[in-house]
Amino acid sequence: MSLYERLFGEPTVAAHLSDDARLQAMLDVEVALAEAQAAVGIVPASCVDPIRDAARADRYDRGALAREAALAGNLAIPLVHHLTRAVASTHPDASRYVHLGATSQDIIDTGLVLQLKAALPALLAQVDRAATHAAGHARRHRSTPQAGRTWLQQATLITFGLKVAGWLDALDRGRRHLAGAASQSLVLQFGGASGTLAALGADAAAVSRGLAERLQLALPAMPWHAHRDRLAHLACALGVLTGTLGKIARDLALLSQTEVAEVYEAPREGRGSSSTMPHKRNPVSAAVALAASVRAPGLVASVLAGMPQEHERGLGGWHAEWEVVPELVLLTAGAARSVADALENLVVDVARMSSNLAITKGLIHSEAVAVELARHIGKPAAHALVDTCCRRAVSEGRLLVNVLVEDAGVTRFLTPDAINARLLPEASLRQGEAFVDAVLAAWKRSEERRGEHDT
Amino acid sequence: MSLYERLFGEPTVAAHLSDDARLQAMLDVEVALAEAQAAVGIVPASCVDPIRDAARADRYDRGALAREAALAGNLAIPLVHHLTRAVASTHPDASRYVHLGATSQDIIDTGLVLQLKAALPALLAQVDRAATHAAGHARRHRSTPQAGRTWLQQATLITFGLKVAGWLDALDRGRRHLAGAASQSLVLQFGGASGTLAALGADAAAVSRGLAERLQLALPAMPWHAHRDRLAHLACALGVLTGTLGKIARDLALLSQTEVAEVYEAPREGRGSSSTMPHKRNPVSAAVALAASVRAPGLVASVLAGMPQEHERGLGGWHAEWEVVPELVLLTAGAARSVADALENLVVDVARMSSNLAITKGLIHSEAVAVELARHIGKPAAHALVDTCCRRAVSEGRLLVNVLVEDAGVTRFLTPDAINARLLPEASLRQGEAFVDAVLAAWKRSEERRGEHDT
Amino acid sequence: MSLYERLFGEPTVAAHLSDDARLQAMLDVEVALAEAQAAVGIVPASCVDPIRDAARADRYDRGALAREAALAGNLAIPLVHHLTRAVASTHPDASRYVHLGATSQDIIDTGLVLQLKAALPALLAQVDRAATHAAGHARRHRSTPQAGRTWLQQATLITFGLKVAGWLDALDRGRRHLAGAASQSLVLQFGGASGTLAALGADAAAVSRGLAERLQLALPAMPWHAHRDRLAHLACALGVLTGTLGKIARDLALLSQTEVAEVYEAPREGRGSSSTMPHKRNPVSAAVALAASVRAPGLVASVLAGMPQEHERGLGGWHAEWEVVPELVLLTAGAARSVADALENLVVDVARMSSNLAITKGLIHSEAVAVELARHIGKPAAHALVDTCCRRAVSEGRLLVNVLVEDAGVTRFLTPDAINARLLPEASLRQGEAFVDAVLAAWKRSEERRGEHDT
Amino acid sequence: MSLYERLFGEPTVAAHLSDDARLQAMLDVEVALAEAQAAVGIVPASCVDPIRDAARADRYDRGALAREAALAGNLAIPLVHHLTRAVASTHPDASRYVHLGATSQDIIDTGLVLQLKAALPALLAQVDRAATHAAGHARRHRSTPQAGRTWLQQATLITFGLKVAGWLDALDRGRRHLAGAASQSLVLQFGGASGTLAALGADAAAVSRGLAERLQLALPAMPWHAHRDRLAHLACALGVLTGTLGKIARDLALLSQTEVAEVYEAPREGRGSSSTMPHKRNPVSAAVALAASVRAPGLVASVLAGMPQEHERGLGGWHAEWEVVPELVLLTAGAARSVADALENLVVDVARMSSNLAITKGLIHSEAVAVELARHIGKPAAHALVDTCCRRAVSEGRLLVNVLVEDAGVTRFLTPDAINARLLPEASLRQGEAFVDAVLAAWKRSEERRGEHDT
Repeated sequence: MSLYERLFGEPTVAAHLSDDARLQAMLDVEVALAEAQAAVGIVPASCVDPIRDAARADRYDRGALAREAALAGNLAIPLVHHLTRAVASTHPDASRYVHLGATSQDIIDTGLVLQLKAALPALLAQVDRAATHAAGHARRHRSTPQAGRTWLQQATLITFGLKVAGWLDALDRGRRHLAGAASQSLVLQFGGASGTLAALGADAAAVSRGLAERLQLALPAMPWHAHRDRLAHLACALGVLTGTLGKIARDLALLSQTEVAEVYEAPREGRGSSSTMPHKRNPVSAAVALAASVRAPGLVASVLAGMPQEHERGLGGWHAEWEVVPELVLLTAGAARSVADALENLVVDVARMSSNLAITKGLIHSEAVAVELARHIGKPAAHALVDTCCRRAVSEGRLLVNVLVEDAGVTRFLTPDAINARLLPEASLRQGEAFVDAVLAAWKRSEERRGEHDT
Repeated sequence: MSLYERLFGEPTVAAHLSDDARLQAMLDVEVALAEAQAAVGIVPASCVDPIRDAARADRYDRGALAREAALAGNLAIPLVHHLTRAVASTHPDASRYVHLGATSQDIIDTGLVLQLKAALPALLAQVDRAATHAAGHARRHRSTPQAGRTWLQQATLITFGLKVAGWLDALDRGRRHLAGAASQSLVLQFGGASGTLAALGADAAAVSRGLAERLQLALPAMPWHAHRDRLAHLACALGVLTGTLGKIARDLALLSQTEVAEVYEAPREGRGSSSTMPHKRNPVSAAVALAASVRAPGLVASVLAGMPQEHERGLGGWHAEWEVVPELVLLTAGAARSVADALENLVVDVARMSSNLAITKGLIHSEAVAVELARHIGKPAAHALVDTCCRRAVSEGRLLVNVLVEDAGVTRFLTPDAINARLLPEASLRQGEAFVDAVLAAWKRSEERRGEHDT
Repeated sequence: MSLYERLFGEPTVAAHLSDDARLQAMLDVEVALAEAQAAVGIVPASCVDPIRDAARADRYDRGALAREAALAGNLAIPLVHHLTRAVASTHPDASRYVHLGATSQDIIDTGLVLQLKAALPALLAQVDRAATHAAGHARRHRSTPQAGRTWLQQATLITFGLKVAGWLDALDRGRRHLAGAASQSLVLQFGGASGTLAALGADAAAVSRGLAERLQLALPAMPWHAHRDRLAHLACALGVLTGTLGKIARDLALLSQTEVAEVYEAPREGRGSSSTMPHKRNPVSAAVALAASVRAPGLVASVLAGMPQEHERGLGGWHAEWEVVPELVLLTAGAARSVADALENLVVDVARMSSNLAITKGLIHSEAVAVELARHIGKPAAHALVDTCCRRAVSEGRLLVNVLVEDAGVTRFLTPDAINARLLPEASLRQGEAFVDAVLAAWKRSEERRGEHDT
Repeated sequence: MSLYERLFGEPTVAAHLSDDARLQAMLDVEVALAEAQAAVGIVPASCVDPIRDAARADRYDRGALAREAALAGNLAIPLVHHLTRAVASTHPDASRYVHLGATSQDIIDTGLVLQLKAALPALLAQVDRAATHAAGHARRHRSTPQAGRTWLQQATLITFGLKVAGWLDALDRGRRHLAGAASQSLVLQFGGASGTLAALGADAAAVSRGLAERLQLALPAMPWHAHRDRLAHLACALGVLTGTLGKIARDLALLSQTEVAEVYEAPREGRGSSSTMPHKRNPVSAAVALAASVRAPGLVASVLAGMPQEHERGLGGWHAEWEVVPELVLLTAGAARSVADALENLVVDVARMSSNLAITKGLIHSEAVAVELARHIGKPAAHALVDTCCRRAVSEGRLLVNVLVEDAGVTRFLTPDAINARLLPEASLRQGEAFVDAVLAAWKRSEERRGEHDT
């Protein structure tokens, strides 16, 4: 484990993407291959156990594998050598059947697929955790008035629940896309030297099927050694999800500013506070997710840039995936965990949301009055009229409402009560609340569907 | 039209993404909005026609719009001003109802959605054209032997049909993903100032529905002004498809090399040949697709990097999309057109494929013999034996088969006939042919499904 | 001019990067080539004028050029054809000498170099404008207290001048790097078909020298047709400068928030204000620079990704540069212009900076007291003591200073006067002011050096 | 060490970028800080040794640090805690002076700077090794004819020495840029909580100077905590150099193709050959460099994308650098090592270069004849004439020279001897050889300058 793996990653996902797991996944492919070949009679049944017994990652010298991989150009070549020697040491006959008819890429690609398949549930669990906490906030704050902010300026009213519903809705889409990309992308790679499985002769199809079954992977129409679009789609889904997590983190960080202070991540022992600056509430979780959203686009671009691979096996593009794809998965998992942490520990200061709304002395509600007036005198005239009142409110340091009720142009069409009604938050938030409800309902349906199918 | 738009783009797609089309799409949203509002009674029925009449892009001064957009920060603000003035000049009352309850982002985002929806069919048509020609080659060359090449070295036999089937399979996946992303992503954006549609009061839902119906766009659970994952998914699908097109182009370019010369794009008047170097067959189409595959990853990364947008409207991230997303669509379309052109005009030199196989004096078939021998003496011994024969063949400049049939270690297990049988291409290509068949069948099913649903 | 070119670009730079300018720059290379060849006697002196006369971009049909470029794969091929025909129409003999010994890439690359060289001064002028205004703010606000903010939390005091000095220092470095990269990168590309200038025989060196002189470009040791590191360095310098402009824009946008409001860009007619939301001060300029900083990294990545070009002329990587490099220059220029605009029109609210410092009730000064106490009782004990006082101040809603002067643990070592002195901004800002002075002095030296050399 | 660190990295560089080295570099900063503070009397002289004694990375529990960093949001916070505790355990007084007046970012940034400074010489040594071997090939093959290839098609003659000179020239530029970027970028970061060094009062300047001297780092005009352009420049220089290494690797891989076979990396035990496909000469080194050139652009983009950092300390952008910058250095080092390996072990098959020139039956020389003829009959007529001869040569399967000497249109101006002279490689390569000489001389000067200054 590297020093920053815990900060930027997620432990369970990291475990599935470790070097150990990488070796074991490759060895698991070799075992399943021997089993599938035994089932069709290419490999004697007695030779499978010795291969399985030897296929334990902890038996092999990592330093030696790293050195030999640096020479060979990939990890499968030395790993197959070591495995073969290990099998030969106890069961010379069986060693003949190690890696039969396969090529390095079969083992490396399918090994990676196995790792990703193992790692993704823990990542999705963090997304679900984030979504669950978001749903809670959306429900609780469905009608909590908050300044909507565009261009980083207070614009018109929203509810905090609506903001969070936006997060939830995007998380739900991102999760669905990622699960979909995984189920379409994580398929068996098995093609032999050039993708024809020539070395297996007439048994090729049966061995492929057997291998796919044993590894519980779908069997594609043909091997994908030189076509990396499946992995690229998965990388993209990770990149988009990380973008959404970064969006949520950015909102959280902005809302946590000393001058805004509408939400903050509850400080924990060792997190978020500063001994020299005790007033600080550092949005540590948000920073982690934002860091991931800075890094993920470049990693996605690397996967895409590597796609135009040469002929039946790429030169560079393929090699680039080996470290980039796991890194991207780990960063996305870390971002999801961080956002889940932040949402779980989020302190929401409703009073501050309310007092921040007063900063503009009611100008934030000016649109609502203008819209009402426009029904009487048209949009341009209404805007001009309200604009004048706003300027007067600002220049005289008064609340907008007090200026409006004195303005004859306004009161000709709107009574003070009507003005006040338009300035009441509740009046303007009905549709926002309906959006919250719609998102919560959609998310619930997503959850139920998942309950049925599982991912 | 810029000087390079025809080279790197596609005319129909370019037309839908032009500045004219951008203005018109935004105006179309304004018209549909007025119609939807008239339907619920917010806008007098008599005011719709004047708005519709004024909503023609060619009426507006582009220079003025560009200058005012540079001040305002977006195009919707000046466009709405100009539209309002134009309506007012003939029908002052109607001008009050222009852009009612909407915000700039509603118009810009939904306008972009309309442009993308209009542009994508022409892009997909090019992908289909590429796929159709690929399918033809795959079918025709299902059994045409060709060197499989890994690490840019001849490895073992494949068929040209199998290589092309790989292209077809990836095109089919890429098309499906893009169509899927489009249908999920290209939805109405309509939220008003901060996403609550507050200015529309109780009519918000009805107007939203009416607007979506008129524009034939799906209505999302809530506005997506600050959540750009839908666009990002679409951008990713474009990026992945361009990667696949780049992969095909790379293969074509490599196969066209003077020293390989197995395929080439038939020169046309003005394309691919050089007056000073008449022997050249420049893979111009391939270069265009490769250029797109160099540019697309960076554009996708820009879209992803822009996702963490601030609060209810982004600052920079949103603005970045305006030029990046259309550029990405145009490049992908150009790449698809180019690959389709290349495949349509592809000259396949089967004789050269065959003679290139002879370069290694039969060593390319050594794996096949080794696999057969391994059944008798195990993999390691078989490899060692064949390796010795190969080295002798190379050092003595003889064909491998002639060395093999003289080697006692080999002939103990394999008769000359058996050796020859293993060296015959046909023997090793059965499974490759089956892969071709599977891909063709899957593609046919895709086509049929499309015929039913249309995209 | 596209609709968004004014918003995201800069007019003078845009003019130098237009399609017209692209054609003219290529034609200028052809003219200089003929002149240089006439000087060494390869081209009759009488043939130069006809070529020069025909070399006016406005003579040529853009639509035809675009169509033919789409076939030929680049713009030089049809442009040379058109130029040759135009020369031939008045002076058949001279037409023989058009483009003699050159290749398309010579014209395209050197043409791009000419465009970039012409465009950069206007870009640098915007950077200088931004720097000059920054220097003014730094000088004026050298001692204006402002909250330093880390993790978006108020941390300890800085001065606004120090913040701006950081901007200025980075602008100065970015400008120097860009000018340096330009002077090293913008050199003649002239190599003929494969980079040997073979077609010019013994005159190659003399023609190269003459061409470089006429175009006022440095002559590199050898042609760089397949090595794009010079352009990539330039792209990187643009990318880094845009990153710095984005940093400044981000700070401006954050400082302009409704809840912070320490600075804002003075609204101009048509910019920054909203008729429906009159309280808004949209940081439009900042958004433009931020958009550039979202887009530039992807464009830089595209240039870098295109570098591994094949043999003596790239396939895709080279083509990608044609639109990407100018786009990057234009975006950087637009970002520089926007930041210069923002800084020129910046309203600085010193009173608000001061009142924002009071938000934490003095906790922002706690570090200063802790540091002083640490001299007496060590860092850990001092922090613990101040921490306790801070918590009391927060829980009781009192100013920190009032809590401190009552705390026996504190007053044992610090008199109320000493406490007040530590809490006075001035005490802690000496070194910050020295930094401002150092940056201003360094910038002045940069300016003077530029005055001497000019860029 | 990870399993792929040896393949994609370089051992010495990796050691300087390891987690151990990261901790030690941070601890080294703390020690130098205490020393510098002792020198000005803030820290008692007797307290320095205890801090120095405790500042050994191997004393600290990595697992604990990783866990605490995950909470705190960076590594400096827990490391300072652990260091303080360790000092306190033997020398309680000294523990008061650990990290005095510094902030986490000072330690993290300056620690990274120290690591980079330590790592770069080993990287540059690999570049030098690559350049030295390139220079040898350029010198040896200064006049070795080879096909120049544009668009992957044989174009006109070059020499292999010229191709390699292009590599050498770019390596030399890349090295110079990287060394320059390092010397400008790797400077002290020391600013305290918000960049004012307020906690150090009047001693701030003296401590800064002392710290810079002890760490042998330049002292910048002001701290750069929020301005990351220096690191970004360094990242860019790495990215460009990797692009150049990728370009060389691509050429090597293309030249090594089975069908071209002009060069190959001599197989070593365990590298480049395949037991099942003994004819293969896998360009493993090239693949490693190409993988780096696929990954580097995305990493550079991440650094650039992270530049717009918030106020006095970034949120996400800063954090992204911690893993990305070291990764980029390691990949560049691995690419340089791989290219150096490939060039050191390069087998050059001059005979094959010559025989490949014959593939086009002399058409590769057609430009030379056309140029000569053009002197007599003008370019268009000359091209038309030669074109006709070329077509005849192709259609009749004859050598171009034999067709030319029979053509009356040609022989009217050129004697058979003159034709043969034009077709002789030597005639066309003079300028190419001059380019080689110029590059070798420039490289020699670069080396000498380095000998004087050292980097």
